[in-house]
Amino acid sequence: MTHTYMANGFDPQSRPELEPEDLALLDRRQRVLGAANRLFYQRPVRVVRGSGVLLYDAAGNDYLDAYNNVPVVGHGNPRVAQAVGDQLRVLNTHTRYLTDDVVAYAERLTALFRHPLSQVMFACSGSEAVDLALRVAAHVTGRNGIIVSAHAYHGTTRATAEVSPSLGGNNPIPAHVALVDMPDPLRDDPATAAADFERRIDDAVRLLEARGHAPGALLLDSVLSSDGLRPAPTAFLERAAAAIRRAGGLYIADEVQAGFGRTGAQWWGFAHYPVEPDMVVLGKPMGNGMPISAVIGRPDVFDRFGRDVRYFNTFAAGSAAVAAATAVLDELEERDLLASATKVGGRLASELRAITADDPRVAEVRATGLFLAVEIVAPGPDRAADAGLARQIVNGMRDRRVLISASGQNENVLKIRPPLVFAEEHIDRLCAAFADALAATARPA
Amino acid sequence: MTHTYMANGFDPQSRPELEPEDLALLDRRQRVLGAANRLFYQRPVRVVRGSGVLLYDAAGNDYLDAYNNVPVVGHGNPRVAQAVGDQLRVLNTHTRYLTDDVVAYAERLTALFRHPLSQVMFACSGSEAVDLALRVAAHVTGRNGIIVSAHAYHGTTRATAEVSPSLGGNNPIPAHVALVDMPDPLRDDPATAAADFERRIDDAVRLLEARGHAPGALLLDSVLSSDGLRPAPTAFLERAAAAIRRAGGLYIADEVQAGFGRTGAQWWGFAHYPVEPDMVVLGKPMGNGMPISAVIGRPDVFDRFGRDVRYFNTFAAGSAAVAAATAVLDELEERDLLASATKVGGRLASELRAITADDPRVAEVRATGLFLAVEIVAPGPDRAADAGLARQIVNGMRDRRVLISASGQNENVLKIRPPLVFAEEHIDRLCAAFADALAATARPA
Repeated sequence: MTHTYMANGFDPQSRPELEPEDLALLDRRQRVLGAANRLFYQRPVRVVRGSGVLLYDAAGNDYLDAYNNVPVVGHGNPRVAQAVGDQLRVLNTHTRYLTDDVVAYAERLTALFRHPLSQVMFACSGSEAVDLALRVAAHVTGRNGIIVSAHAYHGTTRATAEVSPSLGGNNPIPAHVALVDMPDPLRDDPATAAADFERRIDDAVRLLEARGHAPGALLLDSVLSSDGLRPAPTAFLERAAAAIRRAGGLYIADEVQAGFGRTGAQWWGFAHYPVEPDMVVLGKPMGNGMPISAVIGRPDVFDRFGRDVRYFNTFAAGSAAVAAATAVLDELEERDLLASATKVGGRLASELRAITADDPRVAEVRATGLFLAVEIVAPGPDRAADAGLARQIVNGMRDRRVLISASGQNENVLKIRPPLVFAEEHIDRLCAAFADALAATARPA
Repeated sequence: MTHTYMANGFDPQSRPELEPEDLALLDRRQRVLGAANRLFYQRPVRVVRGSGVLLYDAAGNDYLDAYNNVPVVGHGNPRVAQAVGDQLRVLNTHTRYLTDDVVAYAERLTALFRHPLSQVMFACSGSEAVDLALRVAAHVTGRNGIIVSAHAYHGTTRATAEVSPSLGGNNPIPAHVALVDMPDPLRDDPATAAADFERRIDDAVRLLEARGHAPGALLLDSVLSSDGLRPAPTAFLERAAAAIRRAGGLYIADEVQAGFGRTGAQWWGFAHYPVEPDMVVLGKPMGNGMPISAVIGRPDVFDRFGRDVRYFNTFAAGSAAVAAATAVLDELEERDLLASATKVGGRLASELRAITADDPRVAEVRATGLFLAVEIVAPGPDRAADAGLARQIVNGMRDRRVLISASGQNENVLKIRPPLVFAEEHIDRLCAAFADALAATARPA
């Protein structure tokens, strides 16, 4: 085992059962990429090509990808490939020259938000965009305290790792960051969950003030993915936003996971709630894998930061990344993938609930659009998290060539989050692999 | 004027002389990108395509690009475009699956460094890579103090902005960061410059220790670009590295500017000196504009960090970015662009020196490979920096369709840093535009 736990991480001390040429590649990789670059699964998957929701290994076997949200409009998407290749032949430059493409894309993107969220700052990765949003919030509020969820993940720069308690040991959470427990759909009293959550935010505000770090931002993943996907009571985000604003801070919606239709019907996760963020962070699926991310904000906020602080990100919104992002919007709209996420995700959730209804090890199937969580517990009234069983299922499904992962504070929540081109025809294969993998584990008497 | 000064920045309060359709685009841009996204030049350049060292506006006029180091193997490079477009059709995925391409590229890249620098961690931008290197250094040394040059620029995340004093006002430098004045080729005594510099590093070590932040890293751009390009005395980096190691810290070479042949003959700027860094940060030209960056390090350092800390960067070394980076190495090698940088840069420096030899406003022409600095001063024995004249020259050259910029602590150093495909045939045009722009300024009696 490695020193720090990672759900679904390959143990580099082990010798997996793989083809000889895959093992040879693994050895070369360990030499040059070392311990810092971790692989998925007890038996890592060697991937050579992809198409739609399928990945292929060197022997030509296909894997159903029910994990990767980045290739939102499909692996090997020809429209994205064409747009990027064409753009690279013409021009790939930065935003310090006047170019048409980035202005047109920025207009189209901000039109997907309500007034006064009408401006955009670009970056390359979700980490960079969250890092920037936190810098902006600290600058315009004059307050450096930050409130995040108890098992949040927001990125990999120093500033974003500091607000990512899910990274576990050796990733210290500094005094200017306060953690709040999220609503727990399994254990909360639904009648008081939203009010209880608001009270916890107020407590975090007081804690930060007592430490001399008045809160400048509440940063929340709109679907709480690393917390195990916890669609919250309706009033939840609204009350949380009100609490941070009372305290003089801004509410930042991290839509890196939820954004671009993942949650179905709406473009953004927060849009399911009666709430408007002060800033919104976008990432992962934005360019179907081309590195591009963004912060959406109000002109008064960005103008203040932009006038006072010099900011420039060389690669951000480079012409090729903008071409990819434009093609992604085209595909999402023309293929009606937001509606599809609602429909396919809903049916997949129903099927999973049906096949696990009598299984005490499956506490709950949660879903928002095409993001599904299956909470795995030890049988019994406590419904205690069972990370070991979750790991067995993830690896059992991998051996059946269906790719998912696990997450959550106790690493016991199966994470099913396929490209949005995942269609009804793929549901049976996923459910069969899940049922088989579950059946293959030792079922309690 | 904007609140914070930016050399060569467009003033959004001004109304530049541009074509009506360019002004219309500018207005749209200001609405959606606002003050936080700044343009170059008093009259921003609207770019619609590029080829080699040339950029073109909508009317078909060409601009000689003597500024952009990112498109190192040329704007619109067909080999890079083909490689990326092809790869996007096949696969564009992350490093948690076993893939051949990233291993092969990592082997090829690390082979350009000497033992024990044999492992790589990837990121998307130079900022992310510097941020990561600083996290690694702090973790493995247990010390969070950082020493950087007095006018350093290292990035745009919070942690890298904190070590970037060149960002100026409203970008506070915290107590764990100490600044050292760099060697000044115009004003130092050459006999003592290296020893004086080493003493300043020792002073910075003591300052950090006194503040309770023992130094974990000395981070230096190998060509000191934002300090105004100051090729240092031979012993300079060697003594600096020795000083930080005595204090228990690591020497990190920031090669985002210097790397991939920019300095001529050598792949890396530090390779001109008898010194081995503990970590090396790579960025900008690595993918010819496709976002990819890296930290090169020793296995003992990365293993320690990798075992203790969970790190993953979704977009880092995605298949398409690796395809671009591989094509860049192919182009640099097959077109012998490292040797070309030496030859063309040397001739360009000679020409610039020849045409300014009798001009008291040009204090010095410095060059390392195809990175040139022309220091502009007020005539007289003090040779005081003249930022206003430097700005006039930059904008005068832009009006003559030759693109350069300005940098340095006093913003008076012309920065000439073209793609490495800049060839001898382009020298005359650059020099003519420079001479004309200089002549058009009011020359002192």
